[in-house]
Amino acid sequence: MVKKLGVGVIGVGRLGSSYAKYFTGRIAGAALVAVSDVNETVAAALAAELGISKNYSRYQDLIADEDVDAVVIVSPTSTHKEIAFEAAKRGVPIFCEKPLSISLEEAREMLAVVEQTGVFFQMGFMRRFDKGYVAAKAKIEAGSIGTPVVFKSSSRDPYRPSLEYLDPKHSGGLFIDCGIHDLDLARWYMGEIASVYSIGGTLAYPEMKEIGDIDNAIASLYFRSGALGTIDLSRNGVYGYDIRTEILGTEGTLKIGYLRETPVLVMTKNGITHDTVPYFTERFEQAYITQLQDFVENVVQDKTPSVTCADGVAALQASAAATLSFKENRPVTI
Amino acid sequence: MVKKLGVGVIGVGRLGSSYAKYFTGRIAGAALVAVSDVNETVAAALAAELGISKNYSRYQDLIADEDVDAVVIVSPTSTHKEIAFEAAKRGVPIFCEKPLSISLEEAREMLAVVEQTGVFFQMGFMRRFDKGYVAAKAKIEAGSIGTPVVFKSSSRDPYRPSLEYLDPKHSGGLFIDCGIHDLDLARWYMGEIASVYSIGGTLAYPEMKEIGDIDNAIASLYFRSGALGTIDLSRNGVYGYDIRTEILGTEGTLKIGYLRETPVLVMTKNGITHDTVPYFTERFEQAYITQLQDFVENVVQDKTPSVTCADGVAALQASAAATLSFKENRPVTI
Amino acid sequence: MVKKLGVGVIGVGRLGSSYAKYFTGRIAGAALVAVSDVNETVAAALAAELGISKNYSRYQDLIADEDVDAVVIVSPTSTHKEIAFEAAKRGVPIFCEKPLSISLEEAREMLAVVEQTGVFFQMGFMRRFDKGYVAAKAKIEAGSIGTPVVFKSSSRDPYRPSLEYLDPKHSGGLFIDCGIHDLDLARWYMGEIASVYSIGGTLAYPEMKEIGDIDNAIASLYFRSGALGTIDLSRNGVYGYDIRTEILGTEGTLKIGYLRETPVLVMTKNGITHDTVPYFTERFEQAYITQLQDFVENVVQDKTPSVTCADGVAALQASAAATLSFKENRPVTI
Amino acid sequence: MVKKLGVGVIGVGRLGSSYAKYFTGRIAGAALVAVSDVNETVAAALAAELGISKNYSRYQDLIADEDVDAVVIVSPTSTHKEIAFEAAKRGVPIFCEKPLSISLEEAREMLAVVEQTGVFFQMGFMRRFDKGYVAAKAKIEAGSIGTPVVFKSSSRDPYRPSLEYLDPKHSGGLFIDCGIHDLDLARWYMGEIASVYSIGGTLAYPEMKEIGDIDNAIASLYFRSGALGTIDLSRNGVYGYDIRTEILGTEGTLKIGYLRETPVLVMTKNGITHDTVPYFTERFEQAYITQLQDFVENVVQDKTPSVTCADGVAALQASAAATLSFKENRPVTI
Repeated sequence: MVKKLGVGVIGVGRLGSSYAKYFTGRIAGAALVAVSDVNETVAAALAAELGISKNYSRYQDLIADEDVDAVVIVSPTSTHKEIAFEAAKRGVPIFCEKPLSISLEEAREMLAVVEQTGVFFQMGFMRRFDKGYVAAKAKIEAGSIGTPVVFKSSSRDPYRPSLEYLDPKHSGGLFIDCGIHDLDLARWYMGEIASVYSIGGTLAYPEMKEIGDIDNAIASLYFRSGALGTIDLSRNGVYGYDIRTEILGTEGTLKIGYLRETPVLVMTKNGITHDTVPYFTERFEQAYITQLQDFVENVVQDKTPSVTCADGVAALQASAAATLSFKENRPVTI
Repeated sequence: MVKKLGVGVIGVGRLGSSYAKYFTGRIAGAALVAVSDVNETVAAALAAELGISKNYSRYQDLIADEDVDAVVIVSPTSTHKEIAFEAAKRGVPIFCEKPLSISLEEAREMLAVVEQTGVFFQMGFMRRFDKGYVAAKAKIEAGSIGTPVVFKSSSRDPYRPSLEYLDPKHSGGLFIDCGIHDLDLARWYMGEIASVYSIGGTLAYPEMKEIGDIDNAIASLYFRSGALGTIDLSRNGVYGYDIRTEILGTEGTLKIGYLRETPVLVMTKNGITHDTVPYFTERFEQAYITQLQDFVENVVQDKTPSVTCADGVAALQASAAATLSFKENRPVTI
Repeated sequence: MVKKLGVGVIGVGRLGSSYAKYFTGRIAGAALVAVSDVNETVAAALAAELGISKNYSRYQDLIADEDVDAVVIVSPTSTHKEIAFEAAKRGVPIFCEKPLSISLEEAREMLAVVEQTGVFFQMGFMRRFDKGYVAAKAKIEAGSIGTPVVFKSSSRDPYRPSLEYLDPKHSGGLFIDCGIHDLDLARWYMGEIASVYSIGGTLAYPEMKEIGDIDNAIASLYFRSGALGTIDLSRNGVYGYDIRTEILGTEGTLKIGYLRETPVLVMTKNGITHDTVPYFTERFEQAYITQLQDFVENVVQDKTPSVTCADGVAALQASAAATLSFKENRPVTI
Repeated sequence: MVKKLGVGVIGVGRLGSSYAKYFTGRIAGAALVAVSDVNETVAAALAAELGISKNYSRYQDLIADEDVDAVVIVSPTSTHKEIAFEAAKRGVPIFCEKPLSISLEEAREMLAVVEQTGVFFQMGFMRRFDKGYVAAKAKIEAGSIGTPVVFKSSSRDPYRPSLEYLDPKHSGGLFIDCGIHDLDLARWYMGEIASVYSIGGTLAYPEMKEIGDIDNAIASLYFRSGALGTIDLSRNGVYGYDIRTEILGTEGTLKIGYLRETPVLVMTKNGITHDTVPYFTERFEQAYITQLQDFVENVVQDKTPSVTCADGVAALQASAAATLSFKENRPVTI
């Protein structure tokens, strides 16, 4: 029987526990061998549920475990750096959930360590693994829309996350927590961003003023190529989880995204109605799995990461520039 | 100034008054010169509204009017024959709204007179002039879907017309009043119908049993070519006026029709919703106009009718066969 | 650790091997313990791939295995009866893929055995577990469309399966192999079918005449309630795997189904284009999993089957009646 | 017979000749009595075609004509001021096509004259009369989406107009010629604009650099209310005429616009495809007519203009600010 890559998942909250589950049956060539969480009870319960024997409260112990061939970091953003350092020190391949950090400086330190140690490090930006986004990338590369000239992207949460979650001290604020996905896509499809100008406001949830964050924002982008971009972010997409990207080229346009969750149309005197995608787990579950599968294959086959630590730094840098632009109401060069 | 074709409209109820209006500004090369209606007041009021000087209570007078170069018959179906006979006798080109008659025998007499007199006679089947149906026809002829093998068509009224209107003694019943459109399309796209089997029921409006008609029906068709068809008819398309046709070929499929009237999507917690086409006037206004324009051009340019009296007879024959099949619960050969 | 239901999968061809895989990670509360196939090599290879130790060439051995708590029969239809008998004899809970049999007589024998032995027996009709079909069922039961009066359903394969597969001696022909799904849905949504009239033809693939089957068909249904139905089947839905159902009620309509596989729209001078669902594995994978999950829960929790052997007999009976109707060109009472 | 409003159309190029035609049969309560154009031949030919007796080469003569009760100005933008002044001087009600002028100073002079003379003056912004945009306005006012917080609008031409047409000396450049529609909608839906930041480039048609205009642009808006907006403009919407607006509120979102021209879906191995709206005449014909109908009713019934000269000035001011912002790469306060 072929040896499978032994994976340890660090941080098993909402997303981390999903990742752990994906490694028990959905990811070929890999097997979950351990989980860790500062909350011991949570780690132990998940281990029991998934039928694995090892769980840790200290990530250091998981990283040191000889059965762990690779780690997946899904812990709070503020802990990414120290965990990545530890794994790098021990040469254990790393998958790190976005964002790298909410501090650009810290992110750059991580990049430096990754480069110095040569550890395998793959960033998590799952949209790049969604079949819609993947198909669009292939079409652009095949020349279907000529030269891309305008990038438009929109991310809307169906409701406001908790104020605790949103607190910019932890989340980094709207442009980092949410906009980083669109900014990563912008780079992926269009190349490097030259400058950004952002506007925003606390327009739907006045209570967000207390934590010092905004609930709606728009960023305009100049790419280095001269192409243009606009990204709009909202916490009040109350009708559903609405993630869309559009790329206008000289020969055509691509639109990526969808809103209908259940394939039923209801037709009554009130009109023709369908439901919507509830949230990110429904919208991107397959992309998360494909992303982890890709990580495993890259590690096992000794390939380079599909999304690098440098990509993580660049997306964070753009997010930070957007944040600064909003605060100072001026275009910011990157 | 170029002489315009002087048109007289006979019967100015709901549809007839619309036709009369179309002839005052929407149809190039023609001008409304007279209207007639057994209801004198209605005819006079419409003439005043449209700024024409002539109105009649007797269609004979309209037909005899020297300014009338062509007549458009939109009177009750039971009067079509005698009016057509009168116009044929005088050699006045005729446009006749569907159905020719609710009696197949009477329809055949009309065809005989048309053939004997050689009068120009164009049947009204406006769907053949809708841009969706026209485009589909062109695509089929261009080979876009290979050989058509299955025809599907659906006609749904948004509500039950009045019992007075529906009474089969006048309307001919569901297969003739409503299904004749789909059966005409069936012939147009697929060629002659070989046999039909129908089922039906009074399922939504029990009061229709009093007048002896059904409110829902389905007809299965064999075409002479061996191809297949299914048509479903309903009086309870309560969500809107839903007219659709689909043609499956060996290389592809065409779907004709649409349901959204106003280009707005409303996205709320209740889902994504749009409105619907209210009724036939909204759905087919342009088709009605195009149909009348075509009639005028055929008359003026001495062309053959785009839809012939024989087409009217054939569609009625199929409708009558469908009615018989339903009554006797057996396939009926045409 | 909670004991999981030990499942043995009998017949691991295309669908059976998928089922076996689903039982290794996708179905909670169950574990694959053995597979069997008359082709020993296939069974052994799959067991190795899935990391299970037991594989058999004789289904009897699998059924007799003490670790096997329940069997899933996905072998060729002609073998369903004997396998079901064996499992029934030993009291092992059974999930049986559709159709029960291509012989109505044989199917009735199976039902008799199931009833006599009291063995747990659940039929496979995965569409009943698709979230679109499930949501529609719930909406109907909630009264969203009033009383259902017309049922329409369409099944189109994207290409002709092999002639070997299609041979009616094994497949039962178009109405049984393909139409049984729509006929099962018809019963599920509308109640028992009273009579059926079918038409059909070999219109796209002349070579099918050699095996004596048709490639397109339409069936008209009377339900016992008086409601109406129409089902159209095709082997030449060359644009994709197109499965749709529509239920017209007195207060509204439901449309179930979708055609777009990848959430990308391509907009060029050639129009606005999207791709299509390739085939049943893509369209119904989640439904297959949900169906097996439901089976496991019903067995473990000692519930009644969600889809019974009697449902399998009834759907087959309707399919057989449709076949007969086509052959004799007359309505057939069920 | 009721007296109709006698209308004179000044400037009968592409749009002006359409307007003239609409006044012969499509606009109730009004009649075309005269046309004028600096090109005498064009004016005479149109008069003959439309069956009216009066045509002029000098607009002054048309305005002075006693049968002319109201004028519709569709001449080149550079002539709007002098024509409006002449009509204002004589107290003839004015409909003026957008933009008022490409000079903000000149537009303000026009507003001053309109206010001083009290002449009836209605601006042409036809999108406000499109049934989609109208329905959206009504829904917002009915509270369907709560408080609007983000405005998004997109205007794409299907191809580059001629360089002669585009020359910013006449057209005012992309933000004035094209963006003024979106900026007018922005004000209509969201209230006054506080500031704008624009980016742009000559990305698809290098030859536009010669005339000093850009072919793609994005403008970010702050409204006085604090709400946000983004508008993107393109000359290379090569797939069709794509005009869309979206308004995100605290309780929902509205999307206005559509892309399919002909109600046919073509389904083949190449995917599911539909065509697109070719250009503005197809997309907005009914809006143009409704707009003129509204003008006529406002004049006849002595109402205030639905869109005022001040609206024209305000939209131009926003367009000019967007132009300036692009040139100086900084946010511009309005």
